[in-house]
Amino acid sequence: MLNMQTDVFMACDTKYKDASIALFSAPFDGTTSFRPGTRFAGGAIRRDSYGLETFSPYQNADLADCRVFDSGELELPIGDASAVLKAIEKRAALILKDEKLPFMIGGEHLVTLGAFRAVVKKFPRVNIIHFDAHADLREDYLGVKLSHACVLRRCHELLQGGSIFQFGIRSGDKSEFSWGRGRINTRLFDFEGLEETLEKLKGEPVYFTLDLDVLDPSVFPGTGTPEPGGVSFDALRRAATLVCKRAEIVGCDVNELSPHYDQSGISVAAAAKIIREMLIALENKEV
Amino acid sequence: MLNMQTDVFMACDTKYKDASIALFSAPFDGTTSFRPGTRFAGGAIRRDSYGLETFSPYQNADLADCRVFDSGELELPIGDASAVLKAIEKRAALILKDEKLPFMIGGEHLVTLGAFRAVVKKFPRVNIIHFDAHADLREDYLGVKLSHACVLRRCHELLQGGSIFQFGIRSGDKSEFSWGRGRINTRLFDFEGLEETLEKLKGEPVYFTLDLDVLDPSVFPGTGTPEPGGVSFDALRRAATLVCKRAEIVGCDVNELSPHYDQSGISVAAAAKIIREMLIALENKEV
Amino acid sequence: MLNMQTDVFMACDTKYKDASIALFSAPFDGTTSFRPGTRFAGGAIRRDSYGLETFSPYQNADLADCRVFDSGELELPIGDASAVLKAIEKRAALILKDEKLPFMIGGEHLVTLGAFRAVVKKFPRVNIIHFDAHADLREDYLGVKLSHACVLRRCHELLQGGSIFQFGIRSGDKSEFSWGRGRINTRLFDFEGLEETLEKLKGEPVYFTLDLDVLDPSVFPGTGTPEPGGVSFDALRRAATLVCKRAEIVGCDVNELSPHYDQSGISVAAAAKIIREMLIALENKEV
Amino acid sequence: MLNMQTDVFMACDTKYKDASIALFSAPFDGTTSFRPGTRFAGGAIRRDSYGLETFSPYQNADLADCRVFDSGELELPIGDASAVLKAIEKRAALILKDEKLPFMIGGEHLVTLGAFRAVVKKFPRVNIIHFDAHADLREDYLGVKLSHACVLRRCHELLQGGSIFQFGIRSGDKSEFSWGRGRINTRLFDFEGLEETLEKLKGEPVYFTLDLDVLDPSVFPGTGTPEPGGVSFDALRRAATLVCKRAEIVGCDVNELSPHYDQSGISVAAAAKIIREMLIALENKEV
Amino acid sequence: MLNMQTDVFMACDTKYKDASIALFSAPFDGTTSFRPGTRFAGGAIRRDSYGLETFSPYQNADLADCRVFDSGELELPIGDASAVLKAIEKRAALILKDEKLPFMIGGEHLVTLGAFRAVVKKFPRVNIIHFDAHADLREDYLGVKLSHACVLRRCHELLQGGSIFQFGIRSGDKSEFSWGRGRINTRLFDFEGLEETLEKLKGEPVYFTLDLDVLDPSVFPGTGTPEPGGVSFDALRRAATLVCKRAEIVGCDVNELSPHYDQSGISVAAAAKIIREMLIALENKEV
Amino acid sequence: MLNMQTDVFMACDTKYKDASIALFSAPFDGTTSFRPGTRFAGGAIRRDSYGLETFSPYQNADLADCRVFDSGELELPIGDASAVLKAIEKRAALILKDEKLPFMIGGEHLVTLGAFRAVVKKFPRVNIIHFDAHADLREDYLGVKLSHACVLRRCHELLQGGSIFQFGIRSGDKSEFSWGRGRINTRLFDFEGLEETLEKLKGEPVYFTLDLDVLDPSVFPGTGTPEPGGVSFDALRRAATLVCKRAEIVGCDVNELSPHYDQSGISVAAAAKIIREMLIALENKEV
Repeated sequence: MLNMQTDVFMACDTKYKDASIALFSAPFDGTTSFRPGTRFAGGAIRRDSYGLETFSPYQNADLADCRVFDSGELELPIGDASAVLKAIEKRAALILKDEKLPFMIGGEHLVTLGAFRAVVKKFPRVNIIHFDAHADLREDYLGVKLSHACVLRRCHELLQGGSIFQFGIRSGDKSEFSWGRGRINTRLFDFEGLEETLEKLKGEPVYFTLDLDVLDPSVFPGTGTPEPGGVSFDALRRAATLVCKRAEIVGCDVNELSPHYDQSGISVAAAAKIIREMLIALENKEV
Repeated sequence: MLNMQTDVFMACDTKYKDASIALFSAPFDGTTSFRPGTRFAGGAIRRDSYGLETFSPYQNADLADCRVFDSGELELPIGDASAVLKAIEKRAALILKDEKLPFMIGGEHLVTLGAFRAVVKKFPRVNIIHFDAHADLREDYLGVKLSHACVLRRCHELLQGGSIFQFGIRSGDKSEFSWGRGRINTRLFDFEGLEETLEKLKGEPVYFTLDLDVLDPSVFPGTGTPEPGGVSFDALRRAATLVCKRAEIVGCDVNELSPHYDQSGISVAAAAKIIREMLIALENKEV
Repeated sequence: MLNMQTDVFMACDTKYKDASIALFSAPFDGTTSFRPGTRFAGGAIRRDSYGLETFSPYQNADLADCRVFDSGELELPIGDASAVLKAIEKRAALILKDEKLPFMIGGEHLVTLGAFRAVVKKFPRVNIIHFDAHADLREDYLGVKLSHACVLRRCHELLQGGSIFQFGIRSGDKSEFSWGRGRINTRLFDFEGLEETLEKLKGEPVYFTLDLDVLDPSVFPGTGTPEPGGVSFDALRRAATLVCKRAEIVGCDVNELSPHYDQSGISVAAAAKIIREMLIALENKEV
Repeated sequence: MLNMQTDVFMACDTKYKDASIALFSAPFDGTTSFRPGTRFAGGAIRRDSYGLETFSPYQNADLADCRVFDSGELELPIGDASAVLKAIEKRAALILKDEKLPFMIGGEHLVTLGAFRAVVKKFPRVNIIHFDAHADLREDYLGVKLSHACVLRRCHELLQGGSIFQFGIRSGDKSEFSWGRGRINTRLFDFEGLEETLEKLKGEPVYFTLDLDVLDPSVFPGTGTPEPGGVSFDALRRAATLVCKRAEIVGCDVNELSPHYDQSGISVAAAAKIIREMLIALENKEV
Repeated sequence: MLNMQTDVFMACDTKYKDASIALFSAPFDGTTSFRPGTRFAGGAIRRDSYGLETFSPYQNADLADCRVFDSGELELPIGDASAVLKAIEKRAALILKDEKLPFMIGGEHLVTLGAFRAVVKKFPRVNIIHFDAHADLREDYLGVKLSHACVLRRCHELLQGGSIFQFGIRSGDKSEFSWGRGRINTRLFDFEGLEETLEKLKGEPVYFTLDLDVLDPSVFPGTGTPEPGGVSFDALRRAATLVCKRAEIVGCDVNELSPHYDQSGISVAAAAKIIREMLIALENKEV
Repeated sequence: MLNMQTDVFMACDTKYKDASIALFSAPFDGTTSFRPGTRFAGGAIRRDSYGLETFSPYQNADLADCRVFDSGELELPIGDASAVLKAIEKRAALILKDEKLPFMIGGEHLVTLGAFRAVVKKFPRVNIIHFDAHADLREDYLGVKLSHACVLRRCHELLQGGSIFQFGIRSGDKSEFSWGRGRINTRLFDFEGLEETLEKLKGEPVYFTLDLDVLDPSVFPGTGTPEPGGVSFDALRRAATLVCKRAEIVGCDVNELSPHYDQSGISVAAAAKIIREMLIALENKEV
């Protein structure tokens, strides 16, 4: 008998009921301010994940030994950001209800808001660790409040005691930085202070949102708003692994890959490898 | 003294008050169902128009002798289709109030709805001539009614006696064709019957909307949803010229160029040349 | 409960036991003489098939009403052509044993040999209809006999009474044409004589192999050996539909799409649309 | 013993002394008005010629049986158009002195002037057959007289009784067409009248200059100034073959391929195949 | 009333009379020795500058607060390097006469000679700070003296007491380095010694010419002659900011972006961000 | 008299009998597991080598002073890995017999096996220094033993006392690393320990195989299996120079450039520059 083809992220073929992590992708890019196309990220990452190995020589562990289920792409009503966020929230809530960790692949950064709404309902005092080139703290973008340029501002409105910790930020307008002062913990340019932050957050729930444009555009050209002067792949790999190993992650996402802007495919490879390292780290927590 | 740089479609430097046609572009692609990027069409078309001549050997006339003003790109609130349509309607209404012809460069096809709303208010019995690969007659697309896949359906709801005449259609789902039967005049695959249609519409106001994906993808690869088997450049040029020369055009648009999907630039050249021919034809009507 | 993601050609989700046609793809390009990359065709075609509709306005029929199962990609031992052909033959034989039609997506043209071996075992007197730019009749290519440049020669050796009918051929070396004379029915450049051929083959089993480079490179740039001066999309669509509607097809394949050579995606769209039309025609035979 | 590598157009390995035709390429694009890059044409054409066969099924003849020597690329002082033209003239004159036919691969169209200067010295009453999208009849381009936009005007100044016959022209400014009237025989858009022209020129020396942008951009996207609405590959193939078979060609060139603008390589293939057909036709004259 | 569209570098909309800096671009690439295309840099940089913010978190200052006028693209007689340099000199001289700083965007590196001629007339003892991968000190290139490979040699001939200080050089032929010894201050590979140089030049007029290929090709692939092993974006940003903050800049340019060689757009983003940082630094001098 | 064109790596025009090093390229990619295309590396490297200088400011020496012969591309029977390896072995053996150093440009990594077979016959106790991202130590790949994923395992089987020293490895499956333990000297991620290794190998014959994907994909995107997190260009340049200057190199190769995956050309430039530095170092050994 022949089997139906399945197309999951490499080695993520654990059954749902046995999984501790549930992957899904949210192919939405409707509020992208510059170059759209992140809707194609999930498919590209799954496909090209087969160009990598499942084994990590960095962590000396194998994704094949982890319990990850990949539920594939959400079907989203492109053109209606509000409805899109509801669909994402519903999926994340379902995964959370089943006591699994929702791991979302964007899409543009606005998708974070959908997943975070579900997370904050279950973990009201959740904190956010945010890696990004852009502060994403605008009140609105040309009058639009549900925009990827405002997503952390929207998340901030939902916080119930938790805080936001940003790293790697190297772009924003004057008003974002002045509003953020005193409200947001912003580390410019790199990951200095990350270990202290993780120490401080010990035992507290954390949502981890990773905008891949924190990487230097040479490493990650396939993104909507390339911002020169970012971190290296190894710096991000180390930082993301640390967060996943040490923090009490209750949800996470990786976003803003726009594969069509990089004909060489190196951006997809970078995204896939970071996700592999994060998944392995989540399943191999430090004790 | 040095002058500020201006960047208009070639030869479209008539002053607004002296112009009979006002160009503008609507850089919106928020409801694109497959590959986004039409927001970059207006800039690309203006830029590469300088690779063409202003003189048309087809019509033996020169765009430099026409009275066209180019008001540039609208600033649109990406992410909110409703607000986008209002901004487009406002711009078109302003041009119409000043007794000029609004000529819009998309953007995805949904932008037509904004301009058409303004037109139908001034010309309630307006008809539509529609060139396209896709019928665009869906009631909704994944629940979204303001989608480029539904735009002619939305326009149909605004008609007050006028009709829709489609040409070149070669794609749609079963429900679109069955709904369209008896309501819409659909010519599949080519432009046969166009002369008769123009004869019938003599003296009546016409809105002309041209989705460039009616062209074969070999001629026009730079589009969101390439549909093999389309018309040749010369077939479209002749048909579009005919419409602009003979019909009582009260508004028109050209849409669905997505320049980033065509590294060679031939799609941009095709769009620019069609616009040149349309502008010259509109100013050199048959008598 | 969440479902595993599946990634099949659009609308080909009939269960295997209920299907009359079984799709599979053979991602092999190890003997490609010029530009490799056809191994990526199957994935690209499935993915981008969702940019098309399931309904065909040409045949006024819907793929959603057809009984097609998609068994996905074979896992092939890249680097060993002999073993690859065995794996393909095995898959095709299994499908044939279950009284279904094997429909293979290449890969390079050599994959035809694998499927044809299975077919000729079940249908010894099978004929071949072959659309291609290249004659593929070499005895060997730089000493290699299992090469995509020799595939029809290899198939010819397996014939047991059947014949080969080539259409659209516009390239070959002198020796291929002189060898072919009297042995192969070769129609140069176009599809003239196809109806007569189909008439002649009435009631006899036919294997249909379609090398997509029969198309003009403007329509289908994404291929390993582009040969200028080919047929139009509509000419191929009509011819391929005719073959599928009239001949007693017992196996078929579509091959030589190399998607990475066409950044615009129009080649993938052309391949997917031809496959849609062929599947619909196979299920809506002329009576 | 190992041999030095040589990199010639396929099958053009006749010794110089035995050759009747001498190929060379002129990698110059210094006056290109829009998108430069034709300097890379010669290398690309030679390289990808190996993706084609040497045998022509159109003419039933083989390039391998022709006596063509390929002398490779000229080394040209980029940045000094005047010196470039001198170097080209010198090469062409040398070939002419040895009673061979100079066949030049551009480069941009200005290179024609260099070769034509040599030709007109040997054949004062030479005529020109010119295939192109653009009239190239400007007096100057932004004050520059040695520009590819003026090349036929410059050639016209050198005529000593001969005439210029243009075909396929679909672009020019008003002044070019009005100047040309009565001076130049211009056929717009296609090759109608070519047979009559060849009849009229019987027995007279002819220089044949082929700007490949006469082709439709769908067939030939890799060029500096794509002009939609051109001829098909087969139309050009037939016309160029006819000229080479019937006219008394004393020199010829093929120009304006800019390979980097076409990632798919189909433009290079089109150029190489046209050159193959021309070379075979030149060696297989009609009698 | 509708306004004419303007297309300036982001936030550079100060009126000419109020500006302290006047931007212009020189779209010339006629002497490029390898891959041409820098003529498209000015347009691409202006366009994509809108993907960046006007605020610099590095300098904690905003370009919107600077007094910069953008006079757009010069119209240059492509094909005549001599005339091109005259047009550039004229524009720079006009800006200098009005006591503003000319800030030129190339184009290839030869354009520097035009601007420098104007500068040295007003500031005879001017020095040059030169960042580049290539020494550009050839006496001539294939006999051509006005070549981008010779531009610093040509500038050196105009010096009247000033000196040239090169940084980041990692390519040149033997003769350039031996000629340079004792005449030019060349720092290989990086920016070591820049602070000392700035100290030494305190109070003296400086022309700053920045060839962006000093960057590593990973950061800046879109250039005519990529030279592996260059500096990082941050190293260049710091060095260029330092020069603009500390030296008495009387003219400057940024050149050698060739945008078509980088489909991802990261090279354009790098160029735009460097220009933003330079403009802000020039308006926020150290005291 | 005109000369036949030759197309060799820059400055490698020493006659064979006078040369100490003989370059050749092996255009084979038939076992590539992910993205094929390395067959085009040799041509691309030769061509674009002319964008570099022959002089190295790193070593203060000139390739023009070295004695290198370039014998061009092997003609290989694509599709038959076994026959390909024989042809490579034959070429390498011929060069070795003439007491010259064979320097091979791949092709995929499997080509190393062909050259190494010749080397180990002449130098039975030869060692291997191996730079790579991937361990390449699999026993087989989907059942195929002659695969680029197994090449060092195959070489290991031929060793007669020598050892393998790997550097820069950052990918492999679990079984490769466990098999390698105790058998292979593997340095993960970087070149630490290289000097000690060279010290240890003093006086012993060494084959040096350099898989360019050891570089970070940002520097070298044009490869079949990009693996994020690699070494910088300068790190590789220094390490490869050191090996060539200090070790007793008896054969070497540089492989896995797949130029079509990098439209910008920076990968080709990186490969060409590394080869230049290696050739200069081989001819300027440390004493």
